[in-house]
Amino acid sequence: MSAAHIFVWELSGTAMLTLLGCGVGANVTLRRSLGYDGGWLLVTFGWGVAVFVGASIAAPSGAHINPAVTIGLAVNGQVPWSQVPWYLAGQLVGATIGAFVCWAAYKLQFDTHDDPDTTRSVFCTGPTVRNTPWNLVTETVATFVLVLWIILTPSARPGPEGIPDFGNSALGYAAVMFVVIGLGTSLGGPTGYAMNPARDLGPRVAYALLPVRGSADWSYSWIPVAGPIAGAVIAGLAAEALSAV
Amino acid sequence: MSAAHIFVWELSGTAMLTLLGCGVGANVTLRRSLGYDGGWLLVTFGWGVAVFVGASIAAPSGAHINPAVTIGLAVNGQVPWSQVPWYLAGQLVGATIGAFVCWAAYKLQFDTHDDPDTTRSVFCTGPTVRNTPWNLVTETVATFVLVLWIILTPSARPGPEGIPDFGNSALGYAAVMFVVIGLGTSLGGPTGYAMNPARDLGPRVAYALLPVRGSADWSYSWIPVAGPIAGAVIAGLAAEALSAV
Amino acid sequence: MSAAHIFVWELSGTAMLTLLGCGVGANVTLRRSLGYDGGWLLVTFGWGVAVFVGASIAAPSGAHINPAVTIGLAVNGQVPWSQVPWYLAGQLVGATIGAFVCWAAYKLQFDTHDDPDTTRSVFCTGPTVRNTPWNLVTETVATFVLVLWIILTPSARPGPEGIPDFGNSALGYAAVMFVVIGLGTSLGGPTGYAMNPARDLGPRVAYALLPVRGSADWSYSWIPVAGPIAGAVIAGLAAEALSAV
Amino acid sequence: MSAAHIFVWELSGTAMLTLLGCGVGANVTLRRSLGYDGGWLLVTFGWGVAVFVGASIAAPSGAHINPAVTIGLAVNGQVPWSQVPWYLAGQLVGATIGAFVCWAAYKLQFDTHDDPDTTRSVFCTGPTVRNTPWNLVTETVATFVLVLWIILTPSARPGPEGIPDFGNSALGYAAVMFVVIGLGTSLGGPTGYAMNPARDLGPRVAYALLPVRGSADWSYSWIPVAGPIAGAVIAGLAAEALSAV
Repeated sequence: MSAAHIFVWELSGTAMLTLLGCGVGANVTLRRSLGYDGGWLLVTFGWGVAVFVGASIAAPSGAHINPAVTIGLAVNGQVPWSQVPWYLAGQLVGATIGAFVCWAAYKLQFDTHDDPDTTRSVFCTGPTVRNTPWNLVTETVATFVLVLWIILTPSARPGPEGIPDFGNSALGYAAVMFVVIGLGTSLGGPTGYAMNPARDLGPRVAYALLPVRGSADWSYSWIPVAGPIAGAVIAGLAAEALSAV
Repeated sequence: MSAAHIFVWELSGTAMLTLLGCGVGANVTLRRSLGYDGGWLLVTFGWGVAVFVGASIAAPSGAHINPAVTIGLAVNGQVPWSQVPWYLAGQLVGATIGAFVCWAAYKLQFDTHDDPDTTRSVFCTGPTVRNTPWNLVTETVATFVLVLWIILTPSARPGPEGIPDFGNSALGYAAVMFVVIGLGTSLGGPTGYAMNPARDLGPRVAYALLPVRGSADWSYSWIPVAGPIAGAVIAGLAAEALSAV
Repeated sequence: MSAAHIFVWELSGTAMLTLLGCGVGANVTLRRSLGYDGGWLLVTFGWGVAVFVGASIAAPSGAHINPAVTIGLAVNGQVPWSQVPWYLAGQLVGATIGAFVCWAAYKLQFDTHDDPDTTRSVFCTGPTVRNTPWNLVTETVATFVLVLWIILTPSARPGPEGIPDFGNSALGYAAVMFVVIGLGTSLGGPTGYAMNPARDLGPRVAYALLPVRGSADWSYSWIPVAGPIAGAVIAGLAAEALSAV
Repeated sequence: MSAAHIFVWELSGTAMLTLLGCGVGANVTLRRSLGYDGGWLLVTFGWGVAVFVGASIAAPSGAHINPAVTIGLAVNGQVPWSQVPWYLAGQLVGATIGAFVCWAAYKLQFDTHDDPDTTRSVFCTGPTVRNTPWNLVTETVATFVLVLWIILTPSARPGPEGIPDFGNSALGYAAVMFVVIGLGTSLGGPTGYAMNPARDLGPRVAYALLPVRGSADWSYSWIPVAGPIAGAVIAGLAAEALSAV
């Protein structure tokens, strides 16, 4: 695959991911939204479908839409390291663009929201109890499960060319949708389950630039980057060890 | 496909769409319904399955059940423009009929509802904050995602004859069901996610004619028509541009 | 298929249907249940999976588990009328047995429930507003959608031997599960969506015999029988008419 | 399959099961979690996906991740009794490890929870009304449905080598996910639906050892072991009887 091919499709898919993902955040957070206060299951469905749509759109580049997935697959030997920078660049740019479009879709709701302290949570994650090592543990564990599942489920894995073949089924990426819904229901409670450095960093950048901007909490921002990468690397190694049994 | 074939199947599928879709609106809005005040996720599931059933029924004509999808596929060169009027006619007539049948199913609940100002929302969409350009943006963005996904997911796309082949799977249209659930959770907050001119206009006509009628808010009614068409046209062009990478 | 084959498998599948379906009713209705007051979407998921499990178990006999489906398929020429009585007998006996087992699973919750007037709703349906013709309309419309979808979706239909072939997919009946979830969200509000004479009549008989018994509201009991049969017959005729286009 | 192969894959899959399953328990129970008080449907989705992920991971050993399933399949003649101890050992060790990791992911939420009496429910099940025979009935009935469905749905069953073949579909275990969601919505109300001795016993051991420990309620602990085993044995025998019809 050419660098441009990877960059464009990962950008497109990751933009869909944060457009829909931040979208459900806006819907439950902003008072003039129809889904205001709609509950945690609504949030997990929003992010689950966001991954489904984003992965479907990014299928031509292998549907990573997540630096942790790219790195985990590289550690596992399924993606050449020379392609990794193009994946990451597309994911970060796309994630930022998606968050901008989400703001546009909800502009009137942002403008009429009377509790501006809560708008950052629409864009990026944050812990309910702040503690560097344990917040890292949570993000590492959640991403470990995600990436281990992706690597060990052969039919969820990209083929030799990085392109999964789901035959005649538009449901191909529905499996990862359910896994992401489940990770939100089960391991999303402490830190908001970034599990994806681009998903967190891109919208955080957007938040710092948009008219609704407030403190972007940069001191926390490295945790949803480092935790998911750690989880993905461990998953790549664990998958290798397990496959040797 | 003959004009009658297109007209009848699109009418049937779109009638199912608004029967079930307005149905969930009635269920959560009307006080004497068992699903009263059932939350936004319930609404999104109702509309998601409405699309699933409507698309399954309209499979023989390509399962558009949405003028925006028809126009997006025509822009993308997958449907001849000469067939477009028959698609649109079937969709609009079907959407109106479905809303009438929904009213019949919920007649007793309409009759005993003590807050008539809210009954219009059972039939057609409206913004939580009224603003022409930004309401248009929201509907355009949501429909753009829907139509781009339909065009770029090969197995969700109608074949050369306009008939998708899902082989032995009744789940064929479950993928678009999940996408519609996700668009509701994520981009439905500001305007109620029409994403489909027929879905909004047909029931609005029904509302203006039924015994429960009130102001049909015609001044807003062009937005859920123009926004979705704009989104679909942009999606058709974007899909072409992306496929050239 | 032999009469015994039909009777045993329909009995088994329909018993699963009412065990799980009445189960979710008990879970949301009885105060000492963990799912107490869990909302309408929980109810629709319970009944949706009840149909999924029941249809999977009854696959060897064609997975009807519903007299309306049997009659609709007979009208459409897909089931010989001579087999119909065995289907109906198995369905009614199974539905009654399933409700008894549900009571056993929730016995302690029934015993400690402090609002006995609500226990009937665990077993059988009832209208929120009582009116014979309009209650009939609601049940007829909901069942019409269900049976029309079953007949028109080729892969949801039993084969020539009455046995559907879902190949290697345990998800075969997931499609009808989603349709039933959607019919609950969208058309379940006025009467509780029986859509199945056996599902209503069997548990009503059980309720009249069990220790928790109260008035079984026999005067209403013919509506969830007649409405679904009417809807199924209309669907069988409509499917024939549509297929002629 | 070698004993080590069975042990390692069952351990891995069952650890995923209790990590995600206890995770959703923590999310809805602990006050500083984002999913706090998120409702019963959220719980059922968490456990449903937990089974989906656990079964996908444990596919190489047949995806039992449940002593009741192993024993039911052995009774039905599908698993040699000589392998059963290795299945059970892997399941129990894995279930305990998963609960430890869940505690780590939610450590800060456990530390800041102000109602320690409720933390046991994160780990293991308990009845809402305590009564030995009827609690046993509930667990037996729920597990009977689960195991009967697994045995009677050919495509959900492990092949001759104990390895199911889902072809090119990562959705292979989605069917059992829906069944588990449905068993939670429908039969989970009285006792919290263990349906799996390892799922209950492993986390109970973890709870007795962790810093958050309190009374592990050992007097109840044999019921979610004996009930599921009884249900599985009856299901194995029932499946044999049914298949003879």
